[in-house]
Amino acid sequence: MKKQILFWSMMVWTLSVGLPSFAQTVEDFEPSEVNQPGRIYPQVNSERRVRVQISAPEAKKVQLDLGGVKYDLVKDEKGVWIGESAPQQEGFHYYQLNVDGASVPDPSTIYFYGAGRWGSGIEIPAHDADFYALKDIPHGLLSEMNYYSDLTKTWRRCFIYTPAEYNDNKEKRYPVLYLQHGSFEDETGWGRQGKANLILDNLIAARKAVPMLVVMDNGYATKSGEKSPSGASIFEEVLMNEVIPMIDIKFRTLSNRENRAIAGLSMGANQTMRIAMNHPDNFAYYGGFSGTSNYPSIEPLDATIFLDGKFKSGKAVNAQFKVFFLGLGTAEPHPFPGVVKAFRQMLDKQGIKYTYYESPDTAHEWLTWRRALNEFAQLIFK
Amino acid sequence: MKKQILFWSMMVWTLSVGLPSFAQTVEDFEPSEVNQPGRIYPQVNSERRVRVQISAPEAKKVQLDLGGVKYDLVKDEKGVWIGESAPQQEGFHYYQLNVDGASVPDPSTIYFYGAGRWGSGIEIPAHDADFYALKDIPHGLLSEMNYYSDLTKTWRRCFIYTPAEYNDNKEKRYPVLYLQHGSFEDETGWGRQGKANLILDNLIAARKAVPMLVVMDNGYATKSGEKSPSGASIFEEVLMNEVIPMIDIKFRTLSNRENRAIAGLSMGANQTMRIAMNHPDNFAYYGGFSGTSNYPSIEPLDATIFLDGKFKSGKAVNAQFKVFFLGLGTAEPHPFPGVVKAFRQMLDKQGIKYTYYESPDTAHEWLTWRRALNEFAQLIFK
Repeated sequence: MKKQILFWSMMVWTLSVGLPSFAQTVEDFEPSEVNQPGRIYPQVNSERRVRVQISAPEAKKVQLDLGGVKYDLVKDEKGVWIGESAPQQEGFHYYQLNVDGASVPDPSTIYFYGAGRWGSGIEIPAHDADFYALKDIPHGLLSEMNYYSDLTKTWRRCFIYTPAEYNDNKEKRYPVLYLQHGSFEDETGWGRQGKANLILDNLIAARKAVPMLVVMDNGYATKSGEKSPSGASIFEEVLMNEVIPMIDIKFRTLSNRENRAIAGLSMGANQTMRIAMNHPDNFAYYGGFSGTSNYPSIEPLDATIFLDGKFKSGKAVNAQFKVFFLGLGTAEPHPFPGVVKAFRQMLDKQGIKYTYYESPDTAHEWLTWRRALNEFAQLIFK
Repeated sequence: MKKQILFWSMMVWTLSVGLPSFAQTVEDFEPSEVNQPGRIYPQVNSERRVRVQISAPEAKKVQLDLGGVKYDLVKDEKGVWIGESAPQQEGFHYYQLNVDGASVPDPSTIYFYGAGRWGSGIEIPAHDADFYALKDIPHGLLSEMNYYSDLTKTWRRCFIYTPAEYNDNKEKRYPVLYLQHGSFEDETGWGRQGKANLILDNLIAARKAVPMLVVMDNGYATKSGEKSPSGASIFEEVLMNEVIPMIDIKFRTLSNRENRAIAGLSMGANQTMRIAMNHPDNFAYYGGFSGTSNYPSIEPLDATIFLDGKFKSGKAVNAQFKVFFLGLGTAEPHPFPGVVKAFRQMLDKQGIKYTYYESPDTAHEWLTWRRALNEFAQLIFK
């Protein structure tokens, strides 16, 4: 036992002397909550540093690639590489490992679709994580549905959240929120890293939100024949002509405008704003999280020409929307703050009422969007 | 144009001369169907070889680790490694890449839980793939449900397949198949690599199977406080006392024994056989795919002592089961053929009727189990 203590003391000493980057690191790391079952790495400490570990005995250089920075790992005598990042912001971040030039997922995490790939994720516990925690309350279902699109001539998939009571009340009909992901993400985002189902479960159990369905589709849709993702998007047509009618048939929905909301994050905010403005008979609620349709411009907007003058009549827009919601993280990078500011200035000028929510200390990432959804969902269908 | 052809001719010549392993390979590779969106590698050819590609400019050695064999890849002048495997069996296989000693998922595939990890998969198109193909027929939902187990004191998750008509017929009640994964797999296996939902969609649309629910839970369950997975399994208690009652409340089920089936693969076959035999009042149908409860023994079984004599009375067993089904791949490794043979010999000796299905040319892998489910599902609830 004494020998062991001596061994560990020397190890710690060796590490603190040999690896300067460890010197100032608080040694209270805990496994990340999105690790694969039984994996103790990656870990996060109270400073919000991420420590990763991977066995790569013959590698020359291994790095942690997180938040646009590549951190060198250090190899031990058994060929195991270890190292950590600078402190990160609270919430969920995508990351990869780099092994001798190969950018690969960390084999110890579960995987998420973002940044145009299925890759690793890390969860930095947030001080307000309670609102999306898995609690002992009734839970809804997150259901995967395959459907064939006649417009794109491809198989597509959407996810549908049904609240816990949906299966209990066989006759009751429910309002529906259509909720979209951002660029280089897909229909899985809101249900995995977005935790939309848990956010709704918690709000509904606390009676802070009314029971509702949430439909999460894929925002990428191009016309049949145009294989490139750069083909003109027909997501609006797919949503309006295929998805909404299908959901209204398959589920017990309330299908009037007063019971239909639409929201999205980043690219999805841009898309859903256009859709909401083009279909005033279909949506009475709009939520734009970290994005507006003037993206990427930060120039002042002329309401007479922006979106074909859809915001020209403040009175008409105020009559259309029971809730017009905008959310943004206070740490978002250029151009998002400027884009949203320019859009808000136009709204103010037109006398358009809206709710503005700022997520403290979060960037263009999922904690901003979880919080924005948490706020938005409490306002709609009331 | 001519220049391009010359370039490619020389490329092919260079490859065929420079890389002997390519020499005998048929160059009709196509991207695997489980690649990430837009990825052209990994690929499979008509010989059922798997070709992978990964950029790793500074690596010394990169290998494809598939089916227990590590195949060396070859680096081109841009630092991209490429190479292929020997011909594989039809169906789905797990694999990894090895970059300078680091075993990592291929960053180009989607990921599956098997072999105790989330990792890469490859689909070798099967000659009979039509029975699990995604077709333009009505599709059911695959729904994810979180539940808290009082027995394990942990959050658990199950998936529930509901047939396409479930949401249309608001009063109709349905029989339920409880379907379990194998060792080092989890509740996601049957719905992802197992394609249980597509198999049922196709059978139900063709009226070869009756519309049914399929519930897929996690077969690992240990008593609260016993954190090690080696703790005694209480999956039987979780299934009987928590999952089945929950499903019967949450869904429109037919909850008598004539409308409840139980099946599993490998470890799941072993588990579900014990459960079926311990609860004769609860199940009228059993399916064991690539496994029986005498595993891993291939010794002759004594019906008076095996499973506490549960198979002693052939008459009682015949009265209990409307269908007792066993499935096995003809290419399964030791000990599975011997295990199942010993069990069948006991059934024969006891005069117990059963259906035996052999999957041609498949090993202890998912194509065996897809086929077995396809056969079994046609027999039950009729």
